[in-house]
Formats: sequence, C-alpha cells, structure tokens
Amino acid sequence: MTADAELWRELGQQLRVDSIRCSAVPKSGHPTSSMSAADLMAVLIAKYLRYDFDEPKNPANDHLIFSKGHASPLLYSVFKACGAITDDELLTFRKFGSRLEGHPTPEIPWVDVATGSLGQGLPIGVGVALAGKKLEQLPYHVWVLCGDSELAEGSMWEAFEHAAFYGLDNLIAILDINRLGQRGQTMHGWDLASYVRRIEAYGWNAIEIDGHDVDAIDRAYEEALTPNGRPTAVVARTLKGKGVNAVENKDGWHGKALDNPEEAIKELGGERKLVIDVAKPEQAKPRTFDSGALELPTYALGSEVATRKAYGDALLAIGEARGDVVALDGEVSNSTYADEFAKQLPERYFEMYIAEQQLLAAAVGLQVRGWKPFGSTFAAFLSRAYDFIRMAAISRANLRLCGSHAGVSIGEDGPSQMALEDLAAFRAVHGSTVLYPSDANQTAKLVDAMADLDGISFIRTTRAATPVIYGPEEEFPVGGAKVVRDGDDVTIVGAGITLHEALKAAATLADDGVSARVIDLYSVKPVDVETLRESAEGTHGRIVTVEDHWPEGGIGETVLSAFADADERPRVTILAVRELPGSGKPAELLAAAGIDAEHIARAARQLVEAEAVAR
Amino acid sequence: MTADAELWRELGQQLRVDSIRCSAVPKSGHPTSSMSAADLMAVLIAKYLRYDFDEPKNPANDHLIFSKGHASPLLYSVFKACGAITDDELLTFRKFGSRLEGHPTPEIPWVDVATGSLGQGLPIGVGVALAGKKLEQLPYHVWVLCGDSELAEGSMWEAFEHAAFYGLDNLIAILDINRLGQRGQTMHGWDLASYVRRIEAYGWNAIEIDGHDVDAIDRAYEEALTPNGRPTAVVARTLKGKGVNAVENKDGWHGKALDNPEEAIKELGGERKLVIDVAKPEQAKPRTFDSGALELPTYALGSEVATRKAYGDALLAIGEARGDVVALDGEVSNSTYADEFAKQLPERYFEMYIAEQQLLAAAVGLQVRGWKPFGSTFAAFLSRAYDFIRMAAISRANLRLCGSHAGVSIGEDGPSQMALEDLAAFRAVHGSTVLYPSDANQTAKLVDAMADLDGISFIRTTRAATPVIYGPEEEFPVGGAKVVRDGDDVTIVGAGITLHEALKAAATLADDGVSARVIDLYSVKPVDVETLRESAEGTHGRIVTVEDHWPEGGIGETVLSAFADADERPRVTILAVRELPGSGKPAELLAAAGIDAEHIARAARQLVEAEAVAR
Repeated sequence: MTADAELWRELGQQLRVDSIRCSAVPKSGHPTSSMSAADLMAVLIAKYLRYDFDEPKNPANDHLIFSKGHASPLLYSVFKACGAITDDELLTFRKFGSRLEGHPTPEIPWVDVATGSLGQGLPIGVGVALAGKKLEQLPYHVWVLCGDSELAEGSMWEAFEHAAFYGLDNLIAILDINRLGQRGQTMHGWDLASYVRRIEAYGWNAIEIDGHDVDAIDRAYEEALTPNGRPTAVVARTLKGKGVNAVENKDGWHGKALDNPEEAIKELGGERKLVIDVAKPEQAKPRTFDSGALELPTYALGSEVATRKAYGDALLAIGEARGDVVALDGEVSNSTYADEFAKQLPERYFEMYIAEQQLLAAAVGLQVRGWKPFGSTFAAFLSRAYDFIRMAAISRANLRLCGSHAGVSIGEDGPSQMALEDLAAFRAVHGSTVLYPSDANQTAKLVDAMADLDGISFIRTTRAATPVIYGPEEEFPVGGAKVVRDGDDVTIVGAGITLHEALKAAATLADDGVSARVIDLYSVKPVDVETLRESAEGTHGRIVTVEDHWPEGGIGETVLSAFADADERPRVTILAVRELPGSGKPAELLAAAGIDAEHIARAARQLVEAEAVAR
Repeated sequence: MTADAELWRELGQQLRVDSIRCSAVPKSGHPTSSMSAADLMAVLIAKYLRYDFDEPKNPANDHLIFSKGHASPLLYSVFKACGAITDDELLTFRKFGSRLEGHPTPEIPWVDVATGSLGQGLPIGVGVALAGKKLEQLPYHVWVLCGDSELAEGSMWEAFEHAAFYGLDNLIAILDINRLGQRGQTMHGWDLASYVRRIEAYGWNAIEIDGHDVDAIDRAYEEALTPNGRPTAVVARTLKGKGVNAVENKDGWHGKALDNPEEAIKELGGERKLVIDVAKPEQAKPRTFDSGALELPTYALGSEVATRKAYGDALLAIGEARGDVVALDGEVSNSTYADEFAKQLPERYFEMYIAEQQLLAAAVGLQVRGWKPFGSTFAAFLSRAYDFIRMAAISRANLRLCGSHAGVSIGEDGPSQMALEDLAAFRAVHGSTVLYPSDANQTAKLVDAMADLDGISFIRTTRAATPVIYGPEEEFPVGGAKVVRDGDDVTIVGAGITLHEALKAAATLADDGVSARVIDLYSVKPVDVETLRESAEGTHGRIVTVEDHWPEGGIGETVLSAFADADERPRVTILAVRELPGSGKPAELLAAAGIDAEHIARAARQLVEAEAVAR
C-alpha cells in the first residue's frame, strides 16, 4: 500500500467515525449515508480539491456540492478534517442555533447552496460550471456528490443533458451507489451498468469503480480532470454504513443515528485527528464584461405596449449597462422577449430549452458565482420548478424571475398556459418580492430595481399590449402602490391587466355619480399597507379588488392582510377567477371570469349601496 | 403503392388540411406542429387504434394522449376523421364556449387529460398503462404522441425510467422529431440517434423511422404491438409544416396560423372527406378487487398518535374496504406510513421512487381508468410536482394527496424538509380541498371522506405524535370547523400542530382570566365561514390565527377571506413562520417561530388589551 493510500483510508475512517459521533449527539441524522461516501471524499480532499478555506470567496476555488444533502454528517466531518471547523462545533450538529443544520445551507461559508430536496445539487452544479466555463473562463472544478436514490428525479437527467450539451468538462458528478434508499432498495440497486449506460447515452464520460478502493477513486478523479469537452461521472459502488457490521448494507438504517456509536467507532479503529491541508487554487481572475451607463427604454404615454415586451427591452438595457447580468429562458424567449438579450448579448445568455427545473437550478448556480441571473418563461411553467424556487430561498439565493402570459387574458391558448396561481405561489416563498406591472414604463423601472434586490424576486408580465399610462419619469419603489385616479366613494385595487379594467370601470362609475379611487398594486409583496389604509379611510372603508388569478393567495388576500390588525377594517369585495376558463378572446375571458370593467363597476356599485344599507 | 398506403397518405393530407383550416378561423393555433405528425396519426387510426368513439368509457378502449397538446388541431382533425365531431364543430376551434380549446381538455369525451404543459402526457400515459398491465389486466394500448422539445423535460425521463421498470409493453411513445422548437432548433435537432441511444439505455425498444413514410410507420406500430415486456418508442424524423412550402421545415412558424391557408390547402391537394371506421376493441372486463366493510382505525382519547400514522392506518383500512383504492408514494412510505398499505395490498401499491412528477402523473393516469389514487410524500416535496397538480385540476382529475412532515415542527431535519408553503400552493389549485387534521381519529375520518371527494384533495399531516382529543365517534364534515373550547374574550384559530399549542395557550389564558374560544380549522378549503363568523361575534371580534406555515396564503389569510365582505370584520392577529428556520427540537422551533402556546397566549392577551383601548 502506498503512503497516500494509507492516508486516504485512515481519513475515510475518520470521516466515518466523525459522522457517527456527530449524529450520536442529537440521536438523529444520516450517518450510514455518510459512511458510504467517506472514501470518495477522503481522496478528493486529500489530493484533488483546490480550495482555500480561509477565503471561501476566492474566485479560483473549486466547488463541492452535496446533492445528497442528507449526508451532512460527512460534509461537516470533511470541514473538520480540513481544519475549517473544530471538533466542538462538529458536535453541535442539528442543535438549535448551530449552523451545522440537518441539511447544509449557506449559513456555512463553504456551502454554496442549500440541499436536502434531492435532485437539485447536480443541476445547480451545472450552473456553477457554466459560469466557470462560459463566463469566467476559470479553471475551477465543480464536484457534486450525488446519491443513487436521487437519480430517479428527472431533474438529474436535465442536468446530465445540459451539462453534456454545454460541454462542461469542469463538472464531475460523484455517484454514491450504495443501493439502499430510505425504505428499501433503489430501482437499480447495484446495477451500476444501468447508470453508466444512461449517463454515457447523454454524452458524459462515465467511470465505474469500487467506491471503497481508494486507488481506483484516485485513478477515476485523475481521469475526470483530463479535459475532453465532456463532463465526467464517477459511478461508485459503495456500501451504506460501510465498516460497521451492525448497519453495513443493511436495510432500515436510513436517517438514523447508530444504536451503539461507541462500539461502531471501536470497530472503525477509533477516533483519528487527521487534518488535511487542502491545496489552495492558483490565483486567477475571472473574465468580466463591460458595464456602461443605463439607458432604460421609455414608452410614449397613450401608446400600447405589452409589459412582456417592456421586460425584454429593459432586460437588454440592464444587460448592456451591467456586465454582471446574465439571462436564461426556457425555450420561449420569443414570447417572454428575453430573446432581445439573447441576440445582443449571446455570451451572457443561456438557453435552457424546455427544462424549467434546470433553468432555475442554473440560475441558482450562476448567482453562487456572483452573477445576477434573470430567468424567464411563461408564469404557468415556473410552477414546474416550484421546489427549486422554495429551495433557492433557503439557499439565500438572489434570483430574478419573470413569468409571462399571466391569467385568462392570454386568450385562446386556454388554461394550460394561464398562470392563475403564480402570485399565491411566489408570495409563499420566504423573503420573496412579487411585482406585477400594468404599464411598460413601470415594467422597465421595476426590472431595473430587481437587479439590486436580494432574495427571490418575481415579475408577472402580460401577453396583451396595454395602454402606457405612466410617463417615463415616474418612480415605482418596490413596496409602493400608485393612486392612479382619485375618488372618495370606493377604492378599486387592480394590477397588471386588471388595472386597465379598473380604470375603465372608474370612468363608467363617474358617469353614474360614483367616485372611485383606483390603486395600482404593482408591488404585491411587499405591499404598501399605508397607501391601502389611507385609501380605505378616504373611501368609507369600501374596497373592490380585482385580479386575473384565483381568489386564493393573490391580490385580494394581500389587501385583506394589510388590514388584519388595523383599527378600521374595510369591507372588501374580491373579484377573481373562480371557474376554470377555456379558450376565447381575452375580452371574452375577462368578462366570463367576472374581472372586466363591467363586473368591477357592478361590484363597486353594490358595495356603495350595501354599505349605505348597513349604516 | 398498396391501397392501404394510398389511404394513409390521403388521410395524412386530410389531417394537415383540416389542421390548417381550423387554425385559420381564429388565426391562431399550432398547425405546423400538427402537420409533422399527421402521417403518424393517419396510420394509427386507420389500422392500429382500437377505440369505440360511441362509448368512450368502454374499458377495453385504447388510449390516445397528445403529450404535445399544442398539436390540438391534429387531434381535433383526427376526431373529425373518425366521425366523432362534425366539420362545423372542427371550425369552432379556440372559439369561446367551444370544447375544442387551444389545448385539449377532458371537456371532450375522447380526451383523457389536459395537456399543454409539455412533458406531462407521457408520464400520465405511464399511469394509464400501469392500470392496464398491473391492475386491470386488459389488453388495451396507450399511445402517446410526444414532441421533441418536451424531451428536454426531466419528467419525460422519469416516465421512460418508470415505464421500463414496470415492464409496460402496452405503452407506445410516438416521438415526432420535427427538429424545430418554439424559437429555433431543439437541442438535438434531427440527431435521432441521440434520442434512440438514451431511450434504449432506459430499457425501451426504440424504432427509428421516417415519420412521413407510411409503410415504415406501419411496420413500426406492428413491431410495437409485439409484446416483449418493454415499452416502445417510435422515433420519427418529421418535417414541421410538412407539405406546405411556405412553412415546411422553416423557423418562425411555431404556434401560428398560416398566412395563406387557401393556397396551402391547394398545395396539399385540397379538402378530403375521408371518414375512418376506427376498429372497436374486443369486449373485455377489467380485473377488480374485492370490497368489504369499512373498519376505520380508532384511537383512545388522550393517547399520543401522529396524524401521519393515522393516515397510513386509515389508508389501509379504506384500501381493504374499497377495491378501487390504489396508493402511490415517493420512496418515503415508511415516513408517510403509506407502507402499511404497500405491505398489505401490494397489488394496488405503486412505488414511484424519488420522482414526484411521475408520482403525480401516474396518479392522474390511474384515475383516468376510474381508480381512486392516494399519493403521498413529504408535503415539501409535493412542490416538485406543482405544475402536475395545476394541470391535474385542468384535467378534472380526482386525486387524493397526502403531504407529511409539515412545518417547523418536524425539528432537526431543517428547512429543506419543512413544508411551509403547501397550504398556499394547494389552496391556489382550482377546485381543491385542503385538509389539516390535528388528531388521529379526525385524520381517519378525513381520509375516508377524501375517497369520495371530486377534484384535488390534499391532507397535511404532522411528524410528531400529538394528543388524541376527539373520540372516534365524532364527525368532521369537509368544509366544517370544530369549536374545541368555548370562550368569549378572544377566538384562537389553529389546525394541526398549532391546535394543540392553541389549547395550551387557552388554558394559560384561563388562569389569567381571559376566556379563549379555540377553533380547529381542519378544513382549510372549503372553510367554515359560518363558524368563524359566529365565533368572531361571540368573542368581541378578536381573532388570533396560528399556523406552522408562512403567513402568505395559509390559515391567517383564509380566515381573513371569510370576513372580507362581512358586516362585522374582526381584528385578526396572524401568527405564522416569518423567519427562515434552522434545525432544532420541535418545541424550540415552534417557539423561535412565535407559534407556540406562549406566543399565542401573548398575542391573545395583547388583542384583548388593544381592543379594550380601541373602544
């Protein structure tokens, strides 16, 4: 045995022992899923990883992503072995207040993204690798430890597909094929050839090894680092719970601390105190792109422009002004208008094809590297990536998302293409911002604001051309609302397409002697509580809300929430889409849903009359 | 040329002509995407499909699913060619009120499911094929027409994976490889070998053909029908817009009516009036499973039982009582307790592994065949399949879903495993039912009720064991709420884990002389407006809501919505999870989120005091 191999084996045992030790304290966690991959990580950190633990933001650092986030005991044991955390801290695993949570999050400086929802680490790794290869032209590598259970997730195969398509030979997937899932054997067990066959069919280099043979691991990593235009998968046969007879390759030990940790540690040869001086990367500077002065597009008052078009125009302008802005789209860029960016700034545009999960994951990976991604598709299809959006919030990711073709107002395409739940879904994302412009100048301002927002921001755009009602000089702070028409009998709150219906309704109502105030709730979250409360007070506590969205979790409930604990709570009529729409002309569908000008005017009139009766 | 081939070609031309004609009326739709697959459909309906258009519910019928739902002009032209609809109706395509919507929905009796969000038809086809092969043991075939753009969706590869694993040789995927997506060439263009390689790697039989050579199509279908334990993909090279020079194989013609339909129709040889007498299937009866008397599990008052355990117990009981109930789980059945069903009723249980999109799609496919599927996984991971849930509602599907491990109360595993947006997401699904029991007996009753609910019903279960507070004789109608403790100073509304905190808080408050009424909002949607309004009236218009969920779209906003247009609107304090949680003990995390008994009691006290001041 070489000295290297001896060290690697000892290190692997240490990682196992520490995985057991840290899980033993809270009596929970996933030690057996950690033990299977310990040798794979030992060889990696001892010889291949290039990482400066003192400077996690060093742009030349490799990236190590645990797609199988539940193997956090192993990851934290790796951090200890690399001298990044103390043994004392390791033993705070899963304790309230500890940054060593049950699954990794970027609360830890050496963790790029939160994992734990399986099938996300590899597609995110694709984004990080894309940044290195296509944008920064840096030689770092992205190492992603994957489980075998998560290979059932389609998102993993989106990642295999995209990584090969983009020639990401800086990406190495380490597949820990330990055969056992949570409740029994995986679909393919130890049939490694079945994985190799698939992965090679996608155009990757696949290397099948015994994941406990450190020399084989060494050779595989060596080969993986040979650039050949193709990503590499190291497909490793491993034993779950390796090294401890009570649990090794035994069912029923997923996600459980060991019954007898002390005996297990003894069986593994006891505690070690190896500290690895992980090789630092050579200094290198990422390629950057020029920045310039921002010239936002402007639109003439009274002209008709779709907010989706304004999104595309503004995205291009912002991209030209800021070298750190990148864009992605899910093969609908000629509908979302992201194609303007794609055509003018092709080096910073990534076509994700119809793979919304990979789209989101790539955006998360790009922002790991400090880029400012804007991702777009039909708002309805962002629902395909909802778990990725949820997890991105836990990753503290800064993402800008645009969903076009919202609501019944898209017309003939029918309900499969209509986002009617997106406001609810995005509002229920931690720390999110939800914007819904009604006008092209407003859209441009909001898209510009998004570039500097933290967290997940979402902008909902409309298919149809709508009148430009704001001058290009107006400002639209996030968290604000605009009173677009004054009145004192009733407040009508709309946004996007329905704002225009609300304005039409207000005109009709004026003819009937009803004075309606109209509020443009372009910032759905955060919402402008003050303007809403003032307006309610100024209109006898009467509000009609109208939205091209289901009634649940959208504009109506947002408005209600602004008054939940207020001293004066208005009477609110919520107009929303309540029946499943079909196809038809936009005007027909708005009318059928009861959210057009006529229905708004009727609701406002009823409210004024009902309140009159009530008093 | 044989007479058959001559007919098939003519029929293909007719389908093209009719696709152009029907799109010409609304001047929208996807004729070019229809024209590429016309020959593939012509041979299918003329020779292979077994379908009784007069009896769409005939259990022996084949199934034809357009995974590329945008090729609806082709599908409707097929229906016309089969004599199912008239030419007049065909020309109502995309008209308001017509059942021939922009994308197919089951408003049409020969359409099983709504498609139009790409990548869903094939995984749903897997569910339909599973029913035929594993449950009903009927010889019908499931034909799924797929586009090439949608092959970028990971969900398609979940379908390839599961279909092979389950040996579904009754499933035939027809891949219309027309090279062009919406905004340009697909990832693989006409590299058919790349698709064949992948599909074969998954264990399918793949047949590469020229999709306009009717004899080749004929041979491919013949081969596909030869049972060999493997599903078959017919990988067909086609031309988008085939037959019309102005659009054939030309970019920029996706989703557009032709500029000059009359000339195009002339180029295709004019209108035909072929009517195909589609062969009817031989009569056959599906295998059924015995039904028996229902014996729901019961739990002793005061014992501690997790609602997830009660879900598993009840699911098994219902499965034993009703032969039409089937269950699916995403490789976490030992956590959701669906494993009780899996062990006792293995013939009716389908392990979907960690592939939540396929889980949902299979459930949709199973209910197409009249089965009553219950699908379960962690509630957080149902977000992975949100687009499938959204589309299932458009499919008018009857699905029962269980999401376990809701909220911060799961403890140490951390936020990646905590559903905190599921109530918002499921409320915003059209026609959905959202249930959230706090007690084991209640859970059993609600699971039983779900079996007979239409639409998408969702039940949220809790990881921790909680006290049994209801006797087994109590009833819990969907849409109801329980007043579990009476009081007249303030109402506290909780559900699930927080109901128990609310009860503790009420006890503390009683010691302080504050009389709190506690409402168990087990039915979040539909919500019991009457009970809420009565309670508000009986407690001076003071309500505290408390939920293990983000504040947006959950219990607090549900309660607000119950009062939106009421004459008396209570003051509502919404307690919800507002900061990103970490790991910790359940009690620590409930306290940190401000949703434990202590915080509830404090909020209730403040409300009583504030209201006293306000008056």
